[in-house]
Amino acid sequence: MEKFPEDTPALHADLIIHDAYVVTMDQKYRLFEKGAVAVANGIIVAVGNTRDVLERYGAARMIDGRKMLLMPGLVNTHTHSPMTIFRGYADDIPLKQWLYDHIFPVESAFVLPENVRLGTKLALAEMIRSGTTTFNDMYYHSDEVAGVVDKAGMRAVLTEGLIDFPVPNSPTPADALRFSEEMIQAYRPHPLITVGVSVHSVYSASSLVYQQAFELAGKYGVPFNTHLAETRWEFDLIMDRYGVTPARYLDDIGVLGKGLILAHAVHLTDSDMELVALRGAGVAHNPQCNMKLASGVAPIPRLLELGVTVGLGTDGVASNNDLDMFDEMRSCAFSHKITQMDPTVMDARTVLEVATIGGARLLGMDAQIGSLEPGKRADMILLDLNRPHAHPVYNLYSLIVYSLRGSDVHSVYVDGKPLMVNRELLTVDEADLFEQVEALARDISSHREELTAKKIGQAGVSR
Amino acid sequence: MEKFPEDTPALHADLIIHDAYVVTMDQKYRLFEKGAVAVANGIIVAVGNTRDVLERYGAARMIDGRKMLLMPGLVNTHTHSPMTIFRGYADDIPLKQWLYDHIFPVESAFVLPENVRLGTKLALAEMIRSGTTTFNDMYYHSDEVAGVVDKAGMRAVLTEGLIDFPVPNSPTPADALRFSEEMIQAYRPHPLITVGVSVHSVYSASSLVYQQAFELAGKYGVPFNTHLAETRWEFDLIMDRYGVTPARYLDDIGVLGKGLILAHAVHLTDSDMELVALRGAGVAHNPQCNMKLASGVAPIPRLLELGVTVGLGTDGVASNNDLDMFDEMRSCAFSHKITQMDPTVMDARTVLEVATIGGARLLGMDAQIGSLEPGKRADMILLDLNRPHAHPVYNLYSLIVYSLRGSDVHSVYVDGKPLMVNRELLTVDEADLFEQVEALARDISSHREELTAKKIGQAGVSR
Repeated sequence: MEKFPEDTPALHADLIIHDAYVVTMDQKYRLFEKGAVAVANGIIVAVGNTRDVLERYGAARMIDGRKMLLMPGLVNTHTHSPMTIFRGYADDIPLKQWLYDHIFPVESAFVLPENVRLGTKLALAEMIRSGTTTFNDMYYHSDEVAGVVDKAGMRAVLTEGLIDFPVPNSPTPADALRFSEEMIQAYRPHPLITVGVSVHSVYSASSLVYQQAFELAGKYGVPFNTHLAETRWEFDLIMDRYGVTPARYLDDIGVLGKGLILAHAVHLTDSDMELVALRGAGVAHNPQCNMKLASGVAPIPRLLELGVTVGLGTDGVASNNDLDMFDEMRSCAFSHKITQMDPTVMDARTVLEVATIGGARLLGMDAQIGSLEPGKRADMILLDLNRPHAHPVYNLYSLIVYSLRGSDVHSVYVDGKPLMVNRELLTVDEADLFEQVEALARDISSHREELTAKKIGQAGVSR
Repeated sequence: MEKFPEDTPALHADLIIHDAYVVTMDQKYRLFEKGAVAVANGIIVAVGNTRDVLERYGAARMIDGRKMLLMPGLVNTHTHSPMTIFRGYADDIPLKQWLYDHIFPVESAFVLPENVRLGTKLALAEMIRSGTTTFNDMYYHSDEVAGVVDKAGMRAVLTEGLIDFPVPNSPTPADALRFSEEMIQAYRPHPLITVGVSVHSVYSASSLVYQQAFELAGKYGVPFNTHLAETRWEFDLIMDRYGVTPARYLDDIGVLGKGLILAHAVHLTDSDMELVALRGAGVAHNPQCNMKLASGVAPIPRLLELGVTVGLGTDGVASNNDLDMFDEMRSCAFSHKITQMDPTVMDARTVLEVATIGGARLLGMDAQIGSLEPGKRADMILLDLNRPHAHPVYNLYSLIVYSLRGSDVHSVYVDGKPLMVNRELLTVDEADLFEQVEALARDISSHREELTAKKIGQAGVSR
């Protein structure tokens, strides 16, 4: 290799963040106390000690990361982003009643293109502010979602939910399926948006819908999502109806396999877990939603032992009630420790792994994102440690999982581009956004009584 | 009453916050969408709709609370504030090992007056920033803690921990007891600081120490704290040693009664709970610490049913790892819903009650603080709703407990005096604070190996 004169960086980068604590989440779990990351053309080109990186690289944009922590952006593997407009609409009630008496009715009336755009925008503001750089979404009007996400510059997997009764945007699941394929094709060239496929659940969609969705996902090699075994009620219903567990039912109809993302997976038997591991399906774990709706605690430590790929998710805001993955990480650690009565399970590093590279693996994106290493896309977040709760620093994983919060995120980069710097959003316009959301909420509230009386989708669950 | 000319406010206040969402937590749970609170001489003189309050009161200092939420300051009923210096020092390990192999040894070496001052200052910065206005502390060198708290203008109950082996500041529990009495006397005239009494635990202190502490607390009518039934290990140990449960043991030695604050109270039998209710003792509930250390979930819904006074606490930072009561509220709701498998238990309003007026009641301060109502001291916090996660607003209790976070706290008032305005701390100087803490942490880290090998207090727990 040619020799460059001393003091002249040999290679050009666009952006270098230096002198930060760097948590890579690479295979060696490398940590740097005074670390640097260099980015060129949206790709990480160097990660290491500041001195080493600055010997090899120079950049027009140098960011001083002192008193900051640089880590991979968080990957939210299960959410319904436009549902931000229903934040706090119905709390402290059981899941089935929450879903059928409140959420499905209010969705049937208010999930219109303009409201989906508004809810998505609110979600993006919240996600960027709390350090999420990639999310996996299941909702309706996914074309509207995609338009807003594209503008914001977030990385996302977007899907249209398939369900057996008429839903916003699709009178039948066949319509939603057709729409999904059009969307997949339309977004194939997009650098940040992948369109995938979603079936709502085994209690709300037929085996035919699952099989068609499975084929479609396979045809294009895109992620395939479904809610599975979220509640005891669902488990019992499927056992009654088909004589097998929800997980085995998916296997029986031939769709349990690699690329399938099981959201929740709370009620799995031991043999279900082995089956999921054997088939290579993955799990999107939503601890806060599962606790808040009292659905149960997913057997994540055992699934990880079996080698199942696990990502972390917030679920939709109507059940959680936020999109903050830092909060979710803490709840993830806490819920498993207390369930197992063992404080050593789901230690901080394992939790962070699930929230970053694990999520990337679940979405089939681990070659591109999920850790800070040369060759990967530069999806990364910088946290400001200039706060009392960020001191002292004995262990960076403990610090991130047990002490830091979404509000400590200072800057967010996706594909090397800044979406937030010093807590100022650069790609989502918050002006009037909250007022618009409040105006919609007033409208929704004024219809609450008639909506609650509505019956949506109940045929599918009558026994 | 004399009539005043129209348009002339009749009465003078020092401060009026107007046009905010006001959550009072008074006995009628009054809420105001455009509410106001007027404060004079540190006392709340009016609470109501802005129009009504402004008809009766004027003030030199008027604060526009639009897009803000005003509520009572949070009451942290159990913590060890100077332990901030051990944040993240030892995580993901069982309580007994955590306490005896890590915390007691590092405390014996590093709990010195100057470090207690430093840790307390860090704790105060964190507590004020996250909306706590009163805290109940158990530690060593409580005179040092008191000095720092006095300067910061926080309201607190401070106590010196009594324990059977030599601890920082006290070679014997008799010394700590004498010290406690001097402190109680010295702080009797203080407007904000109450000195109480604390015995560490039934496994680390004798019945004699409990009885002397009980007498001292009774003599001065101050709060009396003890850790109780935190772990299964403690429960079994006490059963083995005395043939009764920890709660019944306290009753047998004559100290279970009104004014006693039981921190944790995780492992209570049904008859223990009835006994606690009958004797009028209260419980300081620390859900995050109990989850993180896998100690168990305290039977709070049942205790509340029995009429036991319950407050919320964070416990010390070494186990939690933060002092954020918003985070603690969320975990409180989640942990009970999932344990009971019932999403209706510990609804948002109940959780907020435990974190405010319930805590005030536990500390014997409910006549002064815990709710926004005329005649009470003006301990209150103003939250900024100009954030994506704070919208929409359907239900104020849901918003506070499930969506807002400590970082949304905009201003904090204790006794009507501002401790933070627009996130700027007014009474705690953060300059160099974090650097000092990091320097101490480096010193502590460099001694970790020799400290871990030390054995402290083990005699008391050998069986």
